[in-house]
Amino acid sequence: MYAVILAGGSGTRLWPMSRALFPKQCLPLAVGGRTLFQATVERVLGTVAEERITVVTHVDQAAEIRRQLALMGLKSVRVLAEPQARNTAPAIGLAAWQILREAGPDAVMAVLPSDHLIADSAGFAVLLRRAEAAASSCGLITFGIRPTGPETGYGYIRSGRALAGGLFAVEQFIEKPDSETAQRYLAAGGYFWNSGMFVFRSGALIEQYRALLPDMHAALSRIDAADAAACRNTYHGLASISIDYGILEKACGVAVLPAEIGWSDLGSWQACYQAADQDDRANSFTGRVCAVDTQGALIRSDARLVAAVGVRDMIIVDTADALLVCERSRAQDVKKIVDRLTAAGAPEAREHRTVYCPWGSYTCLETGARYQVKRINVNPGARLSLQSHRFRAEHWTVAAGEALVIVDEGQLVVRTGGSVAVPLGARHRIENKGPQPLIIIEVQNGDYLGEDDIIRYEDDYGRSLGPLQAMD
Amino acid sequence: MYAVILAGGSGTRLWPMSRALFPKQCLPLAVGGRTLFQATVERVLGTVAEERITVVTHVDQAAEIRRQLALMGLKSVRVLAEPQARNTAPAIGLAAWQILREAGPDAVMAVLPSDHLIADSAGFAVLLRRAEAAASSCGLITFGIRPTGPETGYGYIRSGRALAGGLFAVEQFIEKPDSETAQRYLAAGGYFWNSGMFVFRSGALIEQYRALLPDMHAALSRIDAADAAACRNTYHGLASISIDYGILEKACGVAVLPAEIGWSDLGSWQACYQAADQDDRANSFTGRVCAVDTQGALIRSDARLVAAVGVRDMIIVDTADALLVCERSRAQDVKKIVDRLTAAGAPEAREHRTVYCPWGSYTCLETGARYQVKRINVNPGARLSLQSHRFRAEHWTVAAGEALVIVDEGQLVVRTGGSVAVPLGARHRIENKGPQPLIIIEVQNGDYLGEDDIIRYEDDYGRSLGPLQAMD
Repeated sequence: MYAVILAGGSGTRLWPMSRALFPKQCLPLAVGGRTLFQATVERVLGTVAEERITVVTHVDQAAEIRRQLALMGLKSVRVLAEPQARNTAPAIGLAAWQILREAGPDAVMAVLPSDHLIADSAGFAVLLRRAEAAASSCGLITFGIRPTGPETGYGYIRSGRALAGGLFAVEQFIEKPDSETAQRYLAAGGYFWNSGMFVFRSGALIEQYRALLPDMHAALSRIDAADAAACRNTYHGLASISIDYGILEKACGVAVLPAEIGWSDLGSWQACYQAADQDDRANSFTGRVCAVDTQGALIRSDARLVAAVGVRDMIIVDTADALLVCERSRAQDVKKIVDRLTAAGAPEAREHRTVYCPWGSYTCLETGARYQVKRINVNPGARLSLQSHRFRAEHWTVAAGEALVIVDEGQLVVRTGGSVAVPLGARHRIENKGPQPLIIIEVQNGDYLGEDDIIRYEDDYGRSLGPLQAMD
Repeated sequence: MYAVILAGGSGTRLWPMSRALFPKQCLPLAVGGRTLFQATVERVLGTVAEERITVVTHVDQAAEIRRQLALMGLKSVRVLAEPQARNTAPAIGLAAWQILREAGPDAVMAVLPSDHLIADSAGFAVLLRRAEAAASSCGLITFGIRPTGPETGYGYIRSGRALAGGLFAVEQFIEKPDSETAQRYLAAGGYFWNSGMFVFRSGALIEQYRALLPDMHAALSRIDAADAAACRNTYHGLASISIDYGILEKACGVAVLPAEIGWSDLGSWQACYQAADQDDRANSFTGRVCAVDTQGALIRSDARLVAAVGVRDMIIVDTADALLVCERSRAQDVKKIVDRLTAAGAPEAREHRTVYCPWGSYTCLETGARYQVKRINVNPGARLSLQSHRFRAEHWTVAAGEALVIVDEGQLVVRTGGSVAVPLGARHRIENKGPQPLIIIEVQNGDYLGEDDIIRYEDDYGRSLGPLQAMD
């Protein structure tokens, strides 16, 4: 069996923790401090061999996804980076063609979002096996979550006649219902929440692309996902369409496999609150929290101290550069905040204070007049691009580890407590040759300190050279 | 006329903005971004000459008080630093004896807290003049605020027969009443809130110390406030007692001057909310706030973005290292948070991330394993003590300005973008000889990075030498 894990979402319903460049699946919301993405990978590892797992993500998030896989000690998981976000039909198609080429049309593939919570991993594994067994006769299987309440936030599936293996024929996919309709579905039975988890026979799936999305079928059949440039050109022309709308709602012979596996899509802070462990005052606290007479609150803090007095039924999420205080029943309206921030061009809508790169990460510690202080973390064995700046000089002090530094023609080793100056315009590069993480405190001085003041000359990660738009 | 401004309070009812080392009077809560202390000084400047103003503060806060005076361009205001906090009777006595020695027993002195808001400065000046005129016959005058509601948070004054100049004899000082009693006072009339503002004839006041606080009278008559060491020794033995309890409640012939001057003691975040300008949804926002459907909220942010959704009648105060979210009607319970933090030894109860010193300030930007990053701001013309550390090396990069640096026998000038290393154990000193503020980014490396790892050899500010307890 193969697994395709979709990790390209840019959802911001869990803002300010989730942002465009660091979305929900990358957050440590699963049990034991793992990210939702890591928990998803771990969940399939018992059923699917590591080298048969493909992750499809957006190119901006690929470095972080690879970093999280590396932290799990996984080296054979394939990561496909979409050059543009194009919804689920192109993403699943990209992986499906690759599986078809490698393993033929009878290969069975599970398609799994990476930003959901599943409490019952063992039950999920059992369902995966049952779906795999059923896929030879039913080529298109969707997992239907047995409703636990009249939810209006999900699409529903109406099931029809029973099939072998505990499956049912799908009669209809239904858009998110109003509250009354949802109540009726719950009372009637035979309705399931559309979870976005599928098991396909690859030949059957691609047959549907040909029948229902012929242009996309033609384009995808030409793409070699390993050829980044070709992929970029073709991908740009694909329609942005979901697999539900593009294929499943129109295809014949789709089956639903009922699932009771403690599923939550964590689609809002309210959903996170419901899925979280709560204390005897119905509070869920993460981080340093000091609360007086507080009930029904979800409080999460990255680092700072949060004090709450007389708080009732609220969400408080505190990150390095932004804070959310939200009445719990209004959690859906966090979207309005993100929309406003996006319209205003506020960086807090898009990125965190820490930005992950292929070689590590950088964090802005302080911005002043004509100076800026950053922490640069370089992973063992990694190096930044060879680069220069037009408007700023830099000064590096090594706070931990050992750096191999190039400045113009010179090369030197800088140890913990040592420092080196990079004059304006000098070509420079930092490399961590050591086994330990390298931490550098960078002080920038200059008239302009934007991330786009960078000219790249060489790069280990295939990023474009010359003047560019984002710090490497 | 003389003025004695009491600026030694360590109130934490406005935590997390107000802390023991950076109390309410130092906060920019007055109109135009000035601090309450600065607004208090400015208010008396029209009536009292600069060189007749004395500020009494705690030694830990004296540097910040001097800094705020310097920002106003005031150089002749006298600052008396109490070695220990001992409530208002010793603080007022310290200043009164000095005025007595300089100007004799007929000198009139206004005693003013520095952490109150007074909207009507002109009205206040008129009252000061009237009190001054009355002080030759009434030596002990207290300002009574005409109640605007049945407040239970203040002490009350019951007035008696009318005196000349619009004053009334005080019949009784009354402790904070319950709600029913406060209602009765309001209906009856003739009751005033005890504001803590006084006008005394110095001879009359000191006469009361002799009669009512004879031990304190004896001790204070011996103190020369200019002799720090002697002051420290004597002060230690003084009783910690308020001027209200120690003198005014027991003295004969106290008069009350009714005041309607837009007074607020800003004694809680609720009081700050009531005194603040509010928009048409009864919100008062300071800093970067993005609000959806929010009403009746006081939101203050130092630097970060605060997003509020569906927030009703709350206080949200966001500082660099701590956040408060509090139901507005529960503002008095902020004290419980501070008590808990103090009991737990949390630094957030006592100090801010930025700590002010006689020479400038330092701010912790980041603490890591075996390293710490600080911003050090050195005022023009100032220098830190000559010092060394036992457990840490330091590395300084100049982000702005120009530093004269001593490291052991060497001395060098480090300009913006330049850097210098201070090895473990080296004697070192930073001086800002230039006219601009000096900003240094310091990276510390070592096994122990506490503020108490410091040995002082020389100091411009008379602080104790040798190994010590707080960073200079």
